[in-house]
Amino acid sequence: MTEVNLLFEPGKQMVVITHIFDAPRELVWKIYTDPELFPRWWGPEIFKTTIDKMEVKSGGSWRVVQHDPEGNEFAFHGVYHEVKALERVIDTMEWEGMPGHVLLETVTFEDLDGKTKVTNISVFQSVEDRDGMVQTGMEVGVKESNKRFVKLLKELQ
Amino acid sequence: MTEVNLLFEPGKQMVVITHIFDAPRELVWKIYTDPELFPRWWGPEIFKTTIDKMEVKSGGSWRVVQHDPEGNEFAFHGVYHEVKALERVIDTMEWEGMPGHVLLETVTFEDLDGKTKVTNISVFQSVEDRDGMVQTGMEVGVKESNKRFVKLLKELQ
Repeated sequence: MTEVNLLFEPGKQMVVITHIFDAPRELVWKIYTDPELFPRWWGPEIFKTTIDKMEVKSGGSWRVVQHDPEGNEFAFHGVYHEVKALERVIDTMEWEGMPGHVLLETVTFEDLDGKTKVTNISVFQSVEDRDGMVQTGMEVGVKESNKRFVKLLKELQ
Repeated sequence: MTEVNLLFEPGKQMVVITHIFDAPRELVWKIYTDPELFPRWWGPEIFKTTIDKMEVKSGGSWRVVQHDPEGNEFAFHGVYHEVKALERVIDTMEWEGMPGHVLLETVTFEDLDGKTKVTNISVFQSVEDRDGMVQTGMEVGVKESNKRFVKLLKELQ
């Protein structure tokens, strides 16, 4: 079984997402950080995801583009503050449709008796930004990404 | 006259600092982003500040070290998510004494009839992190940096 949980408390400017994957941390880390695998789980399945840049290392930059079936593009980019293999990724993220609105994401990976717990804390520049993101249907998106991630896990296990 | 104002509301995970400088935006921007000038105003006057790296551009990295009179070193580093000349800097910052604790800083520069308003919004990964930073004497530090900044402004005007 795989669990995903989203927490967004009223009046706060963060979202906390936890996943528990029934797989070893090495594999979870690989799927999370490999530019070849990333497009296969990040975002909704009906979007095609392409990697413009994904330098997974401290000080690196990234840019990912989602293409919907109508040909619209949704681009996101940011920088990696820290990448510590198997343990932690801290990065920034901006949707290019709203320039200047940026979030700080802290993702930690923990062993849990053979399973892996992934905790993702996203903090926003304001409560309004956080609420805006939640209202775009973030929960549905996160759950769909989680489902695709698990599918990929099983395929690679 | 120069004004500096700090706002940290209880229970929030951010600090908002505003400065109004009686100087044109070009000069304020230059002092803020020039690696030669930065050590002359950032932090307490009794510390010597050295720049290890300061790549002021989108995707760049920075690392600054403060040396106290006893020879202790306090190092800070981060990445620039965005540098938009004369308008905005968005970057991350981590004090190396507390690894993994990172803040996202958004600094905007606005013309105000010949004066310049600088707004600095720092968001933290938690309320506890924010409160910890405030309790280290952040207010005194910010006010001292502001004073040094103004002194430098006058010298260069």
